[in-house]
Amino acid sequence: MSPFTITILGCGSATPTFNRNPSSQVVFMKDKTFLVDCAEGTQMQLRKFNVRQNRIDHIFISHLHGDHYLGLLGLLFTNHLYGRTKDLHIYAPEELKEIIDIQLRASKSVLIYPLFFHSLKEGVLDTIYECHNCEVSSFPLKHSVDTWGFLFKEKSTGRKIRKDLIEELNIPIEFIKQIKLGEDFINEEGKIYKNEDITSPPDHMRSFAYCSDTIYDEDIIKYIENVDLLYHEATFTNDFATVARDKMHSTSAEAATIALKSKAKQLLIGHFSARYDDEIELLDEARCIFPNTIAADDGKVVYL
Amino acid sequence: MSPFTITILGCGSATPTFNRNPSSQVVFMKDKTFLVDCAEGTQMQLRKFNVRQNRIDHIFISHLHGDHYLGLLGLLFTNHLYGRTKDLHIYAPEELKEIIDIQLRASKSVLIYPLFFHSLKEGVLDTIYECHNCEVSSFPLKHSVDTWGFLFKEKSTGRKIRKDLIEELNIPIEFIKQIKLGEDFINEEGKIYKNEDITSPPDHMRSFAYCSDTIYDEDIIKYIENVDLLYHEATFTNDFATVARDKMHSTSAEAATIALKSKAKQLLIGHFSARYDDEIELLDEARCIFPNTIAADDGKVVYL
Repeated sequence: MSPFTITILGCGSATPTFNRNPSSQVVFMKDKTFLVDCAEGTQMQLRKFNVRQNRIDHIFISHLHGDHYLGLLGLLFTNHLYGRTKDLHIYAPEELKEIIDIQLRASKSVLIYPLFFHSLKEGVLDTIYECHNCEVSSFPLKHSVDTWGFLFKEKSTGRKIRKDLIEELNIPIEFIKQIKLGEDFINEEGKIYKNEDITSPPDHMRSFAYCSDTIYDEDIIKYIENVDLLYHEATFTNDFATVARDKMHSTSAEAATIALKSKAKQLLIGHFSARYDDEIELLDEARCIFPNTIAADDGKVVYL
Repeated sequence: MSPFTITILGCGSATPTFNRNPSSQVVFMKDKTFLVDCAEGTQMQLRKFNVRQNRIDHIFISHLHGDHYLGLLGLLFTNHLYGRTKDLHIYAPEELKEIIDIQLRASKSVLIYPLFFHSLKEGVLDTIYECHNCEVSSFPLKHSVDTWGFLFKEKSTGRKIRKDLIEELNIPIEFIKQIKLGEDFINEEGKIYKNEDITSPPDHMRSFAYCSDTIYDEDIIKYIENVDLLYHEATFTNDFATVARDKMHSTSAEAATIALKSKAKQLLIGHFSARYDDEIELLDEARCIFPNTIAADDGKVVYL
């Protein structure tokens, strides 16, 4: 299977601390490198954790709180200064376009690479990126400003032809594509080999959902059901549930409940308040509800 | 003498490297803490080098290239989240106001502390901050966008009354203020003590000039003559003089020439291109022209 990993660049909320940068993650899926959120300091974190900026062609910004996007301009300028020529796509709330443009104008910068801005659509599940082997969708979260979650999904590879049988049955190359599409094979003597006997099922299509920032909201379950990995913010423990609600954030228990109800295979919690020096309490709380929970940590790589 | 120090938070140009953040400095003068430029990552550098954000009431932004201001919004938000109540003043090119406002609007943020924005005036030496014991002026530099230098100066303490004579001549407390202002002292018997005999000269009024970014420009000399410490950008060595000119930056030799011609007591070079792993070559070049040169380094504290 091709690699599908999440690299945490920052897992803190609101303000940077000594051990946590604010939100940013890199999703490596198939041959693509996606950046999800881009807090201040993201370009330094990319360097620290050996992710080449130039590999990133698609950046997804969940919402316009500073701890999720203030590193974006620096990243755009650095790509410019490093001589990037490839297209760069940004998928974000529409107000970000003017925020970018006004700063390019103020610095009299004309980027030397093509920058494409895609405004996220409100209120719906929307496929915002698609290529032959993967796709990314956005969906609404519930927070104090318009906020989107992102769903990263592999596309089906189709059934796989059994390599041992290609030679044994003498299957001509021109038939292979049809067999992959589900047809049976008929050899020169007219013998029929049923498709299910000469192919194996497609690989499992892995998926990752990114949900930050959001209040506890069961409406998102329909968008993220059965994902292999759910990143859900867990800013507070349950003893700060009132604060969480007031600030439209989630507790660790709530993140775990969403993981349970959406039948996620694994839960990754993050966006921790600076009041937590480590993640033990947050992890314990989530694991009582959803045992297969892990905690984000700057530099951590999670394999799907 | 009260402390007057410069703490380097970032001394790199354009993009952050492993050992250099882009431009930002803290000027401690009298009881004031001034921030000069505020690149991405400045709030992390403040924490790293033990400067309390809450002490900073005045921020000076030289120009609107990202490596000089992209950390400002993060700093404003963090002050807000940490419950700042004191006034905060920003002195910057006027376009920065809209850049701040648009981002406050996008995040639906209403700062809980008063923020005052002061647009820098073009083409003149302008006193932009003044209190009883120090002042800050802005003056024009020559760069690819409108850019300002800053001059930090102590105010005269006035002549100092000789403490040994207060008791010896039995000088009443109510006379001391007048003597400090230059008057003679006449005792009860009518004997006159001339002011210069009972006072010592005022302390030397220390000054610091910040000049970044700028092409070599002798027009600035009139603004910065005789400063105790001159920070002058030295992005390149002389073998990249053409690049320096094209990008409207200075070489280390040019920084040293400005220090020499302006009769600075000491030169601090910085804003080093990422091509220089260390500062040896840049320092050597400057010291050939102006021996009392030191190189900036993230975390370095320079005492005036």
